[in-house]
Amino acid sequence: MSRCFNFSAGPAALPEAVLRQAQAELLEWNGVGASVMEISHRGKDFMALAATAEQDLRDLLAIPDGYKVLFLQGGATQHFAQIPMNIARRDQVADYVLTGAWSEKAAREASPYVTVRVAASAQDGGYTGLPAAGRWRLDPSAAYVHLVSNETIHGVQFDPLPDTGDVPLVADMSSDILSRPIDVARYGLIYAGAQKNIGASGLVVLIVRDDLLARSPADIARIFSYAEHAAQGSLLNTPNTFGWYLAGLVFKWLKAQGGVAAMAARNREKAALLYDAIDASGFYRNTVDPAARSLMNVPFTLPRADLDAAFLRESHAAGLLALKGHKLVGGMRASLYNAVPLEAVQALVGFMRDFASRHG
Amino acid sequence: MSRCFNFSAGPAALPEAVLRQAQAELLEWNGVGASVMEISHRGKDFMALAATAEQDLRDLLAIPDGYKVLFLQGGATQHFAQIPMNIARRDQVADYVLTGAWSEKAAREASPYVTVRVAASAQDGGYTGLPAAGRWRLDPSAAYVHLVSNETIHGVQFDPLPDTGDVPLVADMSSDILSRPIDVARYGLIYAGAQKNIGASGLVVLIVRDDLLARSPADIARIFSYAEHAAQGSLLNTPNTFGWYLAGLVFKWLKAQGGVAAMAARNREKAALLYDAIDASGFYRNTVDPAARSLMNVPFTLPRADLDAAFLRESHAAGLLALKGHKLVGGMRASLYNAVPLEAVQALVGFMRDFASRHG
Repeated sequence: MSRCFNFSAGPAALPEAVLRQAQAELLEWNGVGASVMEISHRGKDFMALAATAEQDLRDLLAIPDGYKVLFLQGGATQHFAQIPMNIARRDQVADYVLTGAWSEKAAREASPYVTVRVAASAQDGGYTGLPAAGRWRLDPSAAYVHLVSNETIHGVQFDPLPDTGDVPLVADMSSDILSRPIDVARYGLIYAGAQKNIGASGLVVLIVRDDLLARSPADIARIFSYAEHAAQGSLLNTPNTFGWYLAGLVFKWLKAQGGVAAMAARNREKAALLYDAIDASGFYRNTVDPAARSLMNVPFTLPRADLDAAFLRESHAAGLLALKGHKLVGGMRASLYNAVPLEAVQALVGFMRDFASRHG
Repeated sequence: MSRCFNFSAGPAALPEAVLRQAQAELLEWNGVGASVMEISHRGKDFMALAATAEQDLRDLLAIPDGYKVLFLQGGATQHFAQIPMNIARRDQVADYVLTGAWSEKAAREASPYVTVRVAASAQDGGYTGLPAAGRWRLDPSAAYVHLVSNETIHGVQFDPLPDTGDVPLVADMSSDILSRPIDVARYGLIYAGAQKNIGASGLVVLIVRDDLLARSPADIARIFSYAEHAAQGSLLNTPNTFGWYLAGLVFKWLKAQGGVAAMAARNREKAALLYDAIDASGFYRNTVDPAARSLMNVPFTLPRADLDAAFLRESHAAGLLALKGHKLVGGMRASLYNAVPLEAVQALVGFMRDFASRHG
């Protein structure tokens, strides 16, 4: 089988142009006589790569001065715990907004390090929408407010962002960073695992406001301290150098595509095509409140669960990969990250119509 | 410049055959229709890759039953801290053996989580040898004894391993794992960053005895718990999938080379060639006690520091990369990990003779 249309929720599709460049220079990069994987992270060649990647990300998201960008390890999950270790004291409260499985997990991993308080939750509705604006109960003395901008499993996304007042807003953007313009100045800390819209797994990017960096306590190991990582330019220890390199290629590719505003337009077009096909089908169903529907992850069900196996088998045979839904919600899921082209969604919608006509 | 002989201390040279295979299948792996970087870590294809890599590592090191193998993130440095978090209580003592910069760093990162006690140290001698056997003062009530089997910066290596009694022995083997046979049963926990003898940076491998896994406390985030990672087969969160894949290719390559005993013979031959050339030169100097000399990292100095720049410039022009010594010890350093062929050392020794004849 050659390369297919890939709807994986993560690790997810990468731009083919990026993979081709990485392939071409895998044995010898940039005239240095070695692979980018085989050189010191402290040498001038890698340091230049790292600085360029950071600048390209700053350009793409218009990151203002007063924010540091970190390229670390551990995925978003490790930072669920490391964030309170750094920006809260154990005796403080942190407000968590629950909009799906990932925000629940973030709250659970944080709980050994801060008093987790649920400020708003859509759990009662089975996470098929966002918490109603009037039902948020924020604590103005909280160390921070945490939310997940896009819930990969439940397929709900904030747009626009709610007003969370003066408490620093911390957002897990693992599954929608770089998919649309954001106003970084509204956030205290943004973080994202790389394996959806940035690159390959094993890298996590953090954008942290300087006043939050100043909160890192002295009584944790240096390796857990964001302030130490920032002071060392993310080279406190050996970083994931290949992951950083690949992220840099993706940032260049995004710039060449017209940046995040251009990606947002394409992402809206892709998602509209799929949601319209679902809604018009009388066969497929997405139960998320239309105002909260994710442009990145589209879960949907078939009229009978006993059709799932056939759908997966036939879609795979048609060259459409990784459409199985997460076990928490069942059914199907199509993830439409930046690297998924419109043609992939057109092919999916075409297959879905055909499948429905044969099984409806 | 095409691929050169690469003496980088880490991230270090990879076997060219491994890079060629990774290159060939970078866009489409194993007939799955996508790159290995673009597929779910929980799907059957990646799970099979992961299981094979683990089994190959078990075969290579003859890892007995009763040990779990973990493929995690954060590098050895994160685990300097995470090990005491898991296998000691804050009110316990842990014995540290100091043999160079890395064992010092391990002790420092551990200190927020356990009472660090220095059981033996070669610091007085500037880390040019190992602590004398009669001067070890082990605490039989310690939670564990920690040592670094090979010190990458100072170029000292344990061979044979000291007798540390009944307290669990924890060894950072980042720079010599898989370079020689070891008796895993003598260790409680072995860990190694991948970027020297296993693969690319961003992956760390741990081999943990079951009784130590049982020590993981319940009051840390799940993501920091070795017991949780072991229970989930290192898939508690998204692992570094490309790093894991690459490690698997290196393990296959090592098996094809004849395994770690064959590598040990080659590593002895390579190191002997270089140390003999240094000792016989009357020009270059390595001050490490011959009984403690590392087979992996060979630091050496020139008779005058003002020759360093010329040595580095000329060796680079001769296609010999990354010979600059670490700033803590100065001079030069040649790292001779598994992926560095004998021909590289022959070329280095030839260059060194020529350089000495011109500058001696």
